Amino acid sequence: MPSDIERLLTLPAVPALPDLHDAALQARLRRAIDGKTKPLGALGEVEALMLRLGLILGSEAPALAAPQLVIYAADHGIATQGVSPYPADVTWQMVHNFLAGGAAASVLARQHGLALTVVDCGVRHDFAPDSGVLIHKVARGTADCTQGPAMSAAQCAEAISNGMALVRALPGNALLLGEMGIGNTSAAALLLARLSGADIEQCTGAGSGLDAAGIARNTALLRRALRVNAAAREPLDALAALGGLEIATMCGSVLQAAAERRVIVVDGFITSAAVLVASRLAPHVLQRCVFAHCGSERAHALMLALMGAQPLLRLGLRLGEGSGAALAWPLLQSACALLREMASFESAGVSNR
Amino acid sequence: MPSDIERLLTLPAVPALPDLHDAALQARLRRAIDGKTKPLGALGEVEALMLRLGLILGSEAPALAAPQLVIYAADHGIATQGVSPYPADVTWQMVHNFLAGGAAASVLARQHGLALTVVDCGVRHDFAPDSGVLIHKVARGTADCTQGPAMSAAQCAEAISNGMALVRALPGNALLLGEMGIGNTSAAALLLARLSGADIEQCTGAGSGLDAAGIARNTALLRRALRVNAAAREPLDALAALGGLEIATMCGSVLQAAAERRVIVVDGFITSAAVLVASRLAPHVLQRCVFAHCGSERAHALMLALMGAQPLLRLGLRLGEGSGAALAWPLLQSACALLREMASFESAGVSNR
Repeated sequence: MPSDIERLLTLPAVPALPDLHDAALQARLRRAIDGKTKPLGALGEVEALMLRLGLILGSEAPALAAPQLVIYAADHGIATQGVSPYPADVTWQMVHNFLAGGAAASVLARQHGLALTVVDCGVRHDFAPDSGVLIHKVARGTADCTQGPAMSAAQCAEAISNGMALVRALPGNALLLGEMGIGNTSAAALLLARLSGADIEQCTGAGSGLDAAGIARNTALLRRALRVNAAAREPLDALAALGGLEIATMCGSVLQAAAERRVIVVDGFITSAAVLVASRLAPHVLQRCVFAHCGSERAHALMLALMGAQPLLRLGLRLGEGSGAALAWPLLQSACALLREMASFESAGVSNR
Repeated sequence: MPSDIERLLTLPAVPALPDLHDAALQARLRRAIDGKTKPLGALGEVEALMLRLGLILGSEAPALAAPQLVIYAADHGIATQGVSPYPADVTWQMVHNFLAGGAAASVLARQHGLALTVVDCGVRHDFAPDSGVLIHKVARGTADCTQGPAMSAAQCAEAISNGMALVRALPGNALLLGEMGIGNTSAAALLLARLSGADIEQCTGAGSGLDAAGIARNTALLRRALRVNAAAREPLDALAALGGLEIATMCGSVLQAAAERRVIVVDGFITSAAVLVASRLAPHVLQRCVFAHCGSERAHALMLALMGAQPLLRLGLRLGEGSGAALAWPLLQSACALLREMASFESAGVSNR
């Protein structure tokens, strides 16, 4: 039964890969990878990445073009409960930092030639028209989900639509997900708990730096949010009740990017929550995703396992902003270059076993 | 008591870091990293890398310059015993493939702007003068170490000297280690067993693709090599008796690069064996090393643990050639860029916790 929110939207179709017109592609890719001048399987998980990128981009010589790092920013009603050690003003302050070039994500985007877009999905701050922020503001932050739903059905649908429109307007064939929002670790934890059925205690952690007492206090708060929103069980209802405006916007972007067969590079815990919701609406979304890393939040591993995801990096990252996606980006470029440029045993005149 | 080999050589001194003239650097680096606009520690192991690169390069604004990927190639007497599923001719054929641009290492070097040098340390093949190979050939392969020592003391000393001279002639401040040599997984396993005291069974694995019967046969052969060379217990004696010409040359390069305070990017199991020997001669070598990855060889984890190394990538790589070092290279560039370019909370006007 579609939720109220689904009736307000037309979600794009995301068919399985390989689709009909390249049904033999998977076998051709496997042969190409196995024929390269290296022992069978010697490039380990990079070979799985080569196969995945070849399938998404529908080519034995895939090339990534005009990669887009999008940072989705919004504020969270639950932040007024003190779920983060940082004040909520940090959300808008960091938006300025992203655009001024001083944040980790800005530095990494410059290093790798990623176009950087920062979207105001619902920040509790008015950005000047010349600030460089892309405005898709649905509200000045969500409501406090410990008191009722974070968003109305209409707000959630609007955010998803914004996310879809936003991707349609972007060039290239790769979308790197980033986010900023004080309190959004809590929103992601709530979505994980609701959609996995795991106890909220398995879904929480230190976030941007809580101590044990802070974690215990948070867990009790989040348990209350789940109780207050007990009726919101379908993916979109859960998104509206427990999520955030940046997560909903991202969810729309993920669906649109998947439908357009773009490569989706998933960053950390919060972007994974958006992908989790999207994958419950359109399971084949996951075929288009590359999971950049598994961070130090214990719940991150649970989230990835739930989606059968194999992350590329394990570096104890817990920054968000798309920093993990940007750090992993050269591995995607390497996978494409290896597929395009490595010689075969035959072409190089090297003896095979 | 210095071995015969040490008497034939003058090994460079490798002092501890930070050295006297930058004793306060470590504290300054720590303060700079902690003041960046991110939660404390949120960049995980990338922060450890930032600190390490700052210390090696002696700067709070470190910059990597003219990185050099050097592939050390040689043949191994033990290969005649069939320790690899590939024929020994693959060593020289792959040297041509590296230079023609079709090997994984060639593709990755191009992607990242790494200067690629391929050194003939002892290949059983005569390369044409215009082949592009750097010739530091000590012999046409080593002797079979299951029958006696792989090298004489003079050969081992010559290879180490070659490795030192080779680095002195290279520009830049970063050396990425790569290797090629059919049979060299066995040589690295022997060095690990001898220098760690672990049983040879803990030090072997599938190499470039052995089955269980092949592994068992190899283990018995390697056990014989250890028995035949039971007297070679000091690091350099072990290197001569059990190692390879590419490993000995690399060992010299590692010592020289460490003395010059270059960043040394260690690839996989075989390059790690060269670093292990070097670190037994000059322990502070390890302060200059960045370990690129932990591969799928079970012995690789043992090797890294023995040196207290924290590898950057865990992608199940087992190719060698420097491919893992090249895949990890952008992470080193990221660490330097983040240290140089990220704003502080103060400079960006972002509220701290």
